[in-house]
Amino acid sequence: MSETAEPMYELAHLGHAELLTPVYEQSLEFFVEVYGMDLVQESGGSAYLRAWGDHDLTTLKLTASDRAGLGHVGWRTISPQALDRRVAALEARGVTGEWIDGDVGHGKAYSFRTPSGQRNEIYYETEKYQAAQGKKSYLPNQPQSSVTRGAAVSRIDHINVLAHDIPAAREFMCQTLGFKLREHLIPPDQSEAGAWLSLMNKAHDLAITREPADTTGRLHHLAYAVENREDVLRAAEVFCELGTFIEFGPAKHSRTQGFFLYVYEPGGNRIEVFAGGFHIFAPDWEPVTWTTEGQGRSTAWGLDVPASFHTHATPVLR
Amino acid sequence: MSETAEPMYELAHLGHAELLTPVYEQSLEFFVEVYGMDLVQESGGSAYLRAWGDHDLTTLKLTASDRAGLGHVGWRTISPQALDRRVAALEARGVTGEWIDGDVGHGKAYSFRTPSGQRNEIYYETEKYQAAQGKKSYLPNQPQSSVTRGAAVSRIDHINVLAHDIPAAREFMCQTLGFKLREHLIPPDQSEAGAWLSLMNKAHDLAITREPADTTGRLHHLAYAVENREDVLRAAEVFCELGTFIEFGPAKHSRTQGFFLYVYEPGGNRIEVFAGGFHIFAPDWEPVTWTTEGQGRSTAWGLDVPASFHTHATPVLR
Amino acid sequence: MSETAEPMYELAHLGHAELLTPVYEQSLEFFVEVYGMDLVQESGGSAYLRAWGDHDLTTLKLTASDRAGLGHVGWRTISPQALDRRVAALEARGVTGEWIDGDVGHGKAYSFRTPSGQRNEIYYETEKYQAAQGKKSYLPNQPQSSVTRGAAVSRIDHINVLAHDIPAAREFMCQTLGFKLREHLIPPDQSEAGAWLSLMNKAHDLAITREPADTTGRLHHLAYAVENREDVLRAAEVFCELGTFIEFGPAKHSRTQGFFLYVYEPGGNRIEVFAGGFHIFAPDWEPVTWTTEGQGRSTAWGLDVPASFHTHATPVLR
Amino acid sequence: MSETAEPMYELAHLGHAELLTPVYEQSLEFFVEVYGMDLVQESGGSAYLRAWGDHDLTTLKLTASDRAGLGHVGWRTISPQALDRRVAALEARGVTGEWIDGDVGHGKAYSFRTPSGQRNEIYYETEKYQAAQGKKSYLPNQPQSSVTRGAAVSRIDHINVLAHDIPAAREFMCQTLGFKLREHLIPPDQSEAGAWLSLMNKAHDLAITREPADTTGRLHHLAYAVENREDVLRAAEVFCELGTFIEFGPAKHSRTQGFFLYVYEPGGNRIEVFAGGFHIFAPDWEPVTWTTEGQGRSTAWGLDVPASFHTHATPVLR
Repeated sequence: MSETAEPMYELAHLGHAELLTPVYEQSLEFFVEVYGMDLVQESGGSAYLRAWGDHDLTTLKLTASDRAGLGHVGWRTISPQALDRRVAALEARGVTGEWIDGDVGHGKAYSFRTPSGQRNEIYYETEKYQAAQGKKSYLPNQPQSSVTRGAAVSRIDHINVLAHDIPAAREFMCQTLGFKLREHLIPPDQSEAGAWLSLMNKAHDLAITREPADTTGRLHHLAYAVENREDVLRAAEVFCELGTFIEFGPAKHSRTQGFFLYVYEPGGNRIEVFAGGFHIFAPDWEPVTWTTEGQGRSTAWGLDVPASFHTHATPVLR
Repeated sequence: MSETAEPMYELAHLGHAELLTPVYEQSLEFFVEVYGMDLVQESGGSAYLRAWGDHDLTTLKLTASDRAGLGHVGWRTISPQALDRRVAALEARGVTGEWIDGDVGHGKAYSFRTPSGQRNEIYYETEKYQAAQGKKSYLPNQPQSSVTRGAAVSRIDHINVLAHDIPAAREFMCQTLGFKLREHLIPPDQSEAGAWLSLMNKAHDLAITREPADTTGRLHHLAYAVENREDVLRAAEVFCELGTFIEFGPAKHSRTQGFFLYVYEPGGNRIEVFAGGFHIFAPDWEPVTWTTEGQGRSTAWGLDVPASFHTHATPVLR
Repeated sequence: MSETAEPMYELAHLGHAELLTPVYEQSLEFFVEVYGMDLVQESGGSAYLRAWGDHDLTTLKLTASDRAGLGHVGWRTISPQALDRRVAALEARGVTGEWIDGDVGHGKAYSFRTPSGQRNEIYYETEKYQAAQGKKSYLPNQPQSSVTRGAAVSRIDHINVLAHDIPAAREFMCQTLGFKLREHLIPPDQSEAGAWLSLMNKAHDLAITREPADTTGRLHHLAYAVENREDVLRAAEVFCELGTFIEFGPAKHSRTQGFFLYVYEPGGNRIEVFAGGFHIFAPDWEPVTWTTEGQGRSTAWGLDVPASFHTHATPVLR
Repeated sequence: MSETAEPMYELAHLGHAELLTPVYEQSLEFFVEVYGMDLVQESGGSAYLRAWGDHDLTTLKLTASDRAGLGHVGWRTISPQALDRRVAALEARGVTGEWIDGDVGHGKAYSFRTPSGQRNEIYYETEKYQAAQGKKSYLPNQPQSSVTRGAAVSRIDHINVLAHDIPAAREFMCQTLGFKLREHLIPPDQSEAGAWLSLMNKAHDLAITREPADTTGRLHHLAYAVENREDVLRAAEVFCELGTFIEFGPAKHSRTQGFFLYVYEPGGNRIEVFAGGFHIFAPDWEPVTWTTEGQGRSTAWGLDVPASFHTHATPVLR
């Protein structure tokens, strides 16, 4: 066997995302009452939220803005040393980022824009959530009591951003940060239309799909996980009872095999309730190349994808 | 922040296990017809099997023997270099193992006994399963068509072995191979009774629980995963219809939060059908110490543990 | 084919039950916050509650009393004429009941004691629940918005009472009221230990099991249904998080094949969360006689029945 | 309360259906290997099949024909007397049917065409299935061992036929046979587009929806039930793995609230895998009138209905 380049395990997980919303109060009410998250604190025009199964203090920052979109996405490294190594790798690649002091829930972070225009940051120091007495779970391996309110999402799972040049966007993430390409879609006679990347055992932590418009930096969706498919079906019922528009699902994706349900939060950002997805354990996973729509249909069971799924993103273009 | 020792990601996953059985034909029939695995090949007095979602050629070796038990357990490293590094670490620790040429499904391996007496091996080179035409799945990210036969388990998940000195047993695995301690049980006025270790994002790949007898090297159980809790309930129905004795479950464990179901295969080895379990993403996960049986009960919802669960292991002592 | 006695369809369904509790406030809080019911009104020392899927105004009356137990159980007839016919049949059988004017949610009722000592009533006139504007469901075929609070039970399902002479108790219900015997348990060398009766398509609306003590009129349990087994598992989690003692389950019964979970409400009455159960469509269903514990085990998958399940009932004997 | 016309309980259940197929061998293979039914016998150019949870000997007759469609549908009465009463009622209504001697699985039957052109029969005498030794279930209240093959449907559930004049079609079934109208759809400025009828506790045993073409007697679909929604999702996976085209679903209907999945069997008949649906216990259920598409959408969660669902029926018109 010839020498193999070793896989890189330098980022640990998706740490948090910041969503912008032009209707801050309605968005906040959605994330708490409908999506089922808890508000941790409000400060500086932002709300910091968490799902009941998140071990970190906060995984969602919701910020009042003139329009919807992605403020930034934060990735946690496996160590402070890995943070330094990744910053060095970014800068060697010509990235010009900046160190920030931190935010609610995490310490110093290196903030930069990816080639596709989204602001990302990497950091290590993290504040863990400590449940107050009345919120402790009967299970000490759970950060707090489970919640039944609304869709009752349990933890942050993945994010999907848009890019024009998907091979360039994914190679940047793989080479500088250690993401691994798990699957990608290259329709016949087209350029690459989507790529699914992950850090360790998940099928994806990050998806990059095609930007249809003449803009950069947009968000396709942010996803939180629930435990199983029944929870996704239950969430659909909750959304209908509470008047939230369902764009797509519940159904099973072909890529990642996740069971999905997409809605728009009041600010316009697409939000997913997600369960399942296959696991990846092989350190030498061969990326799966989906080549045809017959084989490469976006849903496993043949459900048509609504047109908006390929066009709607935030910020909405005007 | 002071310098942190970095977490080690050197082993990728549980690769395979070898089970010994005094009733080879009945055990083989169980694993194929009841548990739902496929037979890959038979040679040298052993059967090599796989679950439909296993990406490797084989994950279970079943070997005719005079009594039941664990032949060995195999762990795959993330790279050939990691294999060399782990062998060096083992030998630096005083382990005297030996290189073997490989077996059906994998290449050269370093074989050694752990302090608790089980034979383990580590290896990198692996043969991936290639589905023949009629067995290909409609989903190219799946190694073969899913199966509905019997319990229809989908992939190898974890193994539980017994040890007298659990702190010593787990520290050996952590320090030489990069396992991470996730949870352990220390009942009041007792020594450590159980430890749950994992490699990356799972709650456990390896459990080490207390050996009640004056022997070493025994197996508590081997577990394959199904997708969700409904699949475990369905498996219970299958076992009852097909006459397989259920020892324990379906129910939810407190440690790992896995949804479990334990049966004995005809040879006497305890086999689990497992779903769920929480995920671990924090690179600095603090091990959860369960200290009392009130808090530390083995099942989450209060179901009593049958006495046999604390005493039966293979080989059965005579 | 010789002339067949025609099956009788005279009672429509279990209408409501009245539970007595010595800790009214705690019991009320349990049924609302933990079990997930809505309070309809309080009057005369009683609370009237309903589950979100109940079409009637109220299905549970909770009454402060010196001790726990069953106040009465109410069955709705299929018509006013059927009510008159059933009263005539009861009186022809020597029952001495009395007409009452009605109660919250229903009109005049004929109240009587069964041979096993429980107070029953039959009635026809019923007040349907009308959801106020903010509680209407998006689905007009549902009485109100579904609820996610606590165990979120959806509708009243069945009741289990105790009797010494089970054949006499069930024959009374069958002959006077049109219940049909679906299954019964006659252990070897014992008298009948349990009988499961239903009115139309369910496996049971009424169970009568053996009274172990020298008393009459006791309640074994009252059950509300949830949609599926995952909802029962979810309820187990809710009970644990909220500190409710689980006596038994979740598991699958052999009789009825229902998926069950039993807890005690704070007053001491045993309450079930139930899903599933087989359906009966044959008008000439042959009662299933369970004769041995090997075959006749109370749980389908072999889970042991806790001793309290055979002894605890309300009122608790002092 | 004024005198109420009493509800009629004269038919017990959907007994069987006969499907015609131009590709008999392929259809038979589908129903056995993919849908998961058992073949009971073949004779006279027909196959008689059953699902594992059907208590009757056979519930599906598959007959070779020049084209697909519904041979007939059979309903079982609650008694021989009820059979005579229903025949009298049919003939009083001017129906000209004929007595037939019976068929595999049932005795003499009265066969007639409904106003919408489908051949129906009513009968009482039925042969119950008796499992041979190796097929007996461990549960004596189940007709045979449960099956895991293919979609593993458990029992016949309902049928949907097409009619031009839906009010006339449903009133005929209600007045002569005792069906009860549970829900109907009357879109604005249109005639009635669908009606859902049942006999006892189900939301529907019979659906009658609008015939879009200039023909009569067509079948929309035949449905078998599985236990829960997870089983429907599992069936979707099975259909995809085995190459069966999914037309629609899995998703939740608004009417009946059933969880559905529609495929075409090789002969072209639309076949459903169904779970859930609400229960009806009120003897005076008020039919729910769906009036607008906003409220009356065919799927609960907003999934679009494919055009073929409103046009494809068997026989296919040429």
